[in-house]
Amino acid sequence: MAEDRPEGESAQQAGWGAPAVILVAPQLGENIGMAARAMLNFGLDEMRLVRPRDAWPNAAAESAAAGAERILENARHFESTAEAVADLGYVLAATGRVRGMTNRVLTPRRAGRKLRECASASVRVGVLFGPEASGLANDDVALSDAVVQVPANPAFHSLNLAQAVLVLAYEWFAAGDAGPEDAMTLPRTRPANKAELMGLFEHLEHALDASGFLSIEGKRSIMVRNLRNLFQRAGLSEQEVRTLRGVIATLVHARPPEC
Amino acid sequence: MAEDRPEGESAQQAGWGAPAVILVAPQLGENIGMAARAMLNFGLDEMRLVRPRDAWPNAAAESAAAGAERILENARHFESTAEAVADLGYVLAATGRVRGMTNRVLTPRRAGRKLRECASASVRVGVLFGPEASGLANDDVALSDAVVQVPANPAFHSLNLAQAVLVLAYEWFAAGDAGPEDAMTLPRTRPANKAELMGLFEHLEHALDASGFLSIEGKRSIMVRNLRNLFQRAGLSEQEVRTLRGVIATLVHARPPEC
Repeated sequence: MAEDRPEGESAQQAGWGAPAVILVAPQLGENIGMAARAMLNFGLDEMRLVRPRDAWPNAAAESAAAGAERILENARHFESTAEAVADLGYVLAATGRVRGMTNRVLTPRRAGRKLRECASASVRVGVLFGPEASGLANDDVALSDAVVQVPANPAFHSLNLAQAVLVLAYEWFAAGDAGPEDAMTLPRTRPANKAELMGLFEHLEHALDASGFLSIEGKRSIMVRNLRNLFQRAGLSEQEVRTLRGVIATLVHARPPEC
Repeated sequence: MAEDRPEGESAQQAGWGAPAVILVAPQLGENIGMAARAMLNFGLDEMRLVRPRDAWPNAAAESAAAGAERILENARHFESTAEAVADLGYVLAATGRVRGMTNRVLTPRRAGRKLRECASASVRVGVLFGPEASGLANDDVALSDAVVQVPANPAFHSLNLAQAVLVLAYEWFAAGDAGPEDAMTLPRTRPANKAELMGLFEHLEHALDASGFLSIEGKRSIMVRNLRNLFQRAGLSEQEVRTLRGVIATLVHARPPEC
C-alpha cells in the first residue's frame, strides 16, 4: 500500500507525504478503530501496526472505525518498531513523559508544521504511538528524531491513544489549511453593501423619528450612532437587510392610529 | 457545582473561566465518558447534559471516563438547550455543517483564543455539541454567538463526539499555554557550552589527524567544518560531550599498534 499508493481519489485526499501513524503494541481494538477514523478525518491514510495485542482482523476495531475501515484493511504489520520505521526519513515519538533521556520536544503544533516541511522536501514521515497502559518504551523513542508532547493538565495528562492520534492528525491538517480563522457562511446571499446598510439605517431612523423615539433633544445623534454600530457589528447579509426593513415596515403599520 | 465551584485544587486546575461543555441529546455513554476524559486532560471540568438518550448514571460513560468520573458525577442536567446556556455570556456551537443559515464560523484555534478573551473579561463561556447521528439542530445553533468548525477532510469530515470535544478542549488549553514550541529535555544535565564543544572538536580532530583520516591535502578544513556542523546540530548536552570524548578515547586506544 505505501509503496504503490493508488492514484486517484484516495491519494488526493490524503495528499502525498501525509505521515504514517505507527501504533506500537496497541491493546484495544476500539482505540485502533477510533485512531483510523481520526486519521481519515484529517487526510491520513497509512496505518502501521507493530505487534497488536489482539488477533487481526479485529471486529472491535472495525466497528469503531465507523467508515474508515479501509485504513484498517490496508494497515501493514511489523514485528518490530525498527522495521516499521525503516523506510521513513523523519520520525516523531508521541509520548506523555520523557523519562531520563535528552530529547528534542515539540508541541503538536510545531510537529504539524515540521512534518509538512519534511513532506515538502520529499522526506517520508511518521509518528510513533505506544501501548495504552505504558506508552512508548525508551528504545522506541530512541528511534525517533524528536518527541512530540501534547500540552495538557499536569494532574491528568494521559491522553487516550486515539485522542493522541487525533491531536497529531489535526495539527498536520491545520498546518496545511489556508482557510480563514474567522468567516461568515452566507447561503444564497452575500454580505450587504454599505448602500444597503444606509438604506436600512435611514428607514429605521425615519420610522423612529416619526414615532417620537428619537425626539429627545441632544440625544438623537448618540442614539443613531449606537443603533448604526449595533447593526454594523452584526455583519448583515443583503437578505437580512431586507428582512429587517420588512420588520420595520410591519411594526410601523401595526402601530395603533394616533388619536 | 458551577455556582459554588470549590476553592483549591480542582478550581486551580480548571482555571476559572474554562468553558462549559454542553452535550445536547448525546446518544452513547462511551462518548460522554470519553468527552469527560478529554475535558479533564485539558483542564475543563464543567459538563452539562441536555436530555441524554440513556438513563443516568450511565455505566458505559463511567467506564470510558477512565479517571474523569468526577466530571460525570458533577454534570448538571437540563431539559432544553436554552436552559443549559441561560447563565452563559458567550456560546459557540460545534457543528460540521452549517445548514442554510448566515453564521460567523471560527476555526477551533480562533475559538480557543476567543474563549480565553471572553473568560479574561469575566464572561462565562460554553460550547454546544450535538447528538452523534444528526449534530446540532438549527434552533440550537441559533442560541450561539458563532459556529466553530473543525477543518477536516471534506470527504470524511464528521468527527466522533468525544473527538470534537477534545479538539476544542485542546485549543482552549493551547491558547493559554505559554510553553516553548520546541525545547530540549535535559535530565540531570545542561546544554554543553561552546568551550566544551571546542574541547570535543579538538579532541576528535587531534585523534583523526593522528590516524591519518584528515591527511588529504586541501580537504582537511572542509572535513573539520562538516564534522563540527554535524555535532553542533545535535544540540549536545554537557553529559553527551563527555560521553563522546570517552568514545573517541576508547576508539583511539583500541586501534592496533602501528607497525
